[in-house]
Amino acid sequence: MIEKDRMPRLGIDLGGTFARAAVVDEQGRILAADKVALSERTPSAVVEAIARAAQQALKAAGAVDVNACGVGAAGQIHGESGVLAVAPNLGWRNVPLGALLAERLGHGVRVVNDLRAAAWGEFNAGAGRGSQDMYTVFVGSGVGSAVIANGRLVTGGSGLAGELGHTKVVPNGRKCGCGELGCLEAYVGGHNLMAQTRELLASGKSPAIRELTGGDPEKITPVTLEKAAELGDAVASELYERVALMLTLAVANQVTVLNPARLILGGGVLTHCPGLRRRVVEGVQKYASTTSREGLLITEAELGDDSGIIGAALLA
Amino acid sequence: MIEKDRMPRLGIDLGGTFARAAVVDEQGRILAADKVALSERTPSAVVEAIARAAQQALKAAGAVDVNACGVGAAGQIHGESGVLAVAPNLGWRNVPLGALLAERLGHGVRVVNDLRAAAWGEFNAGAGRGSQDMYTVFVGSGVGSAVIANGRLVTGGSGLAGELGHTKVVPNGRKCGCGELGCLEAYVGGHNLMAQTRELLASGKSPAIRELTGGDPEKITPVTLEKAAELGDAVASELYERVALMLTLAVANQVTVLNPARLILGGGVLTHCPGLRRRVVEGVQKYASTTSREGLLITEAELGDDSGIIGAALLA
Repeated sequence: MIEKDRMPRLGIDLGGTFARAAVVDEQGRILAADKVALSERTPSAVVEAIARAAQQALKAAGAVDVNACGVGAAGQIHGESGVLAVAPNLGWRNVPLGALLAERLGHGVRVVNDLRAAAWGEFNAGAGRGSQDMYTVFVGSGVGSAVIANGRLVTGGSGLAGELGHTKVVPNGRKCGCGELGCLEAYVGGHNLMAQTRELLASGKSPAIRELTGGDPEKITPVTLEKAAELGDAVASELYERVALMLTLAVANQVTVLNPARLILGGGVLTHCPGLRRRVVEGVQKYASTTSREGLLITEAELGDDSGIIGAALLA
Repeated sequence: MIEKDRMPRLGIDLGGTFARAAVVDEQGRILAADKVALSERTPSAVVEAIARAAQQALKAAGAVDVNACGVGAAGQIHGESGVLAVAPNLGWRNVPLGALLAERLGHGVRVVNDLRAAAWGEFNAGAGRGSQDMYTVFVGSGVGSAVIANGRLVTGGSGLAGELGHTKVVPNGRKCGCGELGCLEAYVGGHNLMAQTRELLASGKSPAIRELTGGDPEKITPVTLEKAAELGDAVASELYERVALMLTLAVANQVTVLNPARLILGGGVLTHCPGLRRRVVEGVQKYASTTSREGLLITEAELGDDSGIIGAALLA
């Protein structure tokens, strides 16, 4: 007989287009996985898609039962409520995903933010192994972070810790998608990097952005600004250095306060903009307090797209 | 027979001029306390002073033995080493206080930073009671902070978490006492508030500072700048609003990332500059992310000078 806490767990990664399910052992190894496209985004259709992916993953793993189920979902989840308060990818507000899924699957479900799930996966089975204090920063279309201290995920008083993207870098500055002004994400999130690059293109002051895009704003990507800066374009360089410094100071200051043993940098923008990543790494060495970066290891996520599903399973 | 974990503990508060000792029960109540002036600051003289204060406190409490001893000391202590790496008040570097004191007292001693001890005291027996996630900011001659998450003190990978005073607010800015440039403490720590006020006095551009001090730089205190700003002095107001915003953003951004249930503001500068404290409180409401400040309680330390000795005892 398998002891209950050594039974495999089910991890779910809920994105905007797919639900992925994996059967994960207690050490964070994926035994089998499956994914199902989300044809509809109503809560009941998504719950069905998750259940189908889960059944297929369980079948492929030859598992009859799981100990627990964890879901990593993009969005705001208050504490242990299992309610997705805001999930922009799915167009959801206040959907009690945990309760709906628990009813459908017949056992308990824990719902956590996808970035936290990914950080927990890296902490236990990836780049954070062996440490007790880890800080993870992801820069993709948005900017998020996750804090692990004393070997535990820091969730905060209302379950929303880690919102580095909504720290204010310019008082009353640029409008952020969250509705507030001057958030870090309003400058360095991928969507906003593109928006600012479009503004430079429209201003007619950046020959390099015009050249890289043929003047077509649709051809702008989050990488365009870095490429234009590398071509020596003056206005592109000015903006690029400015946003790079904002991100660098924000990350370095968290290193000073949190004194993590590991700093994990991930997300599409940092992956595809190597110059930006290099500036952050060098900037942490320059701006984090000397004492806080003694023994600090700055590294990349190791588990790729699997970190979230593994972390969700291990958090279950 | 008293169970071991319910025996009273000994708390020590080691300042630059006194060693205070208290016998503290498991709920954080002081049963008896005593203090001994530090006539000399050599490690052996300080250890003797602590031992004398401890013996007198034990005698006054009618206690024959204690479960454990905790020391809160101003300075940098790496992890659980018990070594005071830097203790400016005592002029010490790399003094193994924990080991020296354990030998003298005949039982184990835990040495922690004084601000962390105070935060732990407030968390367990003062303003943090009932919460699991608390952030404490002290602005005195320096600027420090302490993070409590999931009910535990966050110490960080090398034991130096909480150094809010050494986050960078101006890249390559004003020189800080730590040797680095542009630290928050270089602008809003009490010593540096005074230094900047002296610079304004010397510049001859601030009639209010000249009036408040009679032109004597020796009469400048950390409160002088706030008073001059309140008198409507233009250059004093400009500097004052600038440093107030730096502090406000730094605190608000930590609220956004850490999502504490309680924010404790303390320290001499915040106590004696009510305008600065008000700006920080209002600024957190303005600049911390909406979600992070849902349910946030901003409050003052409740235990006054006893927080450190109580916290040290409870951390022992």
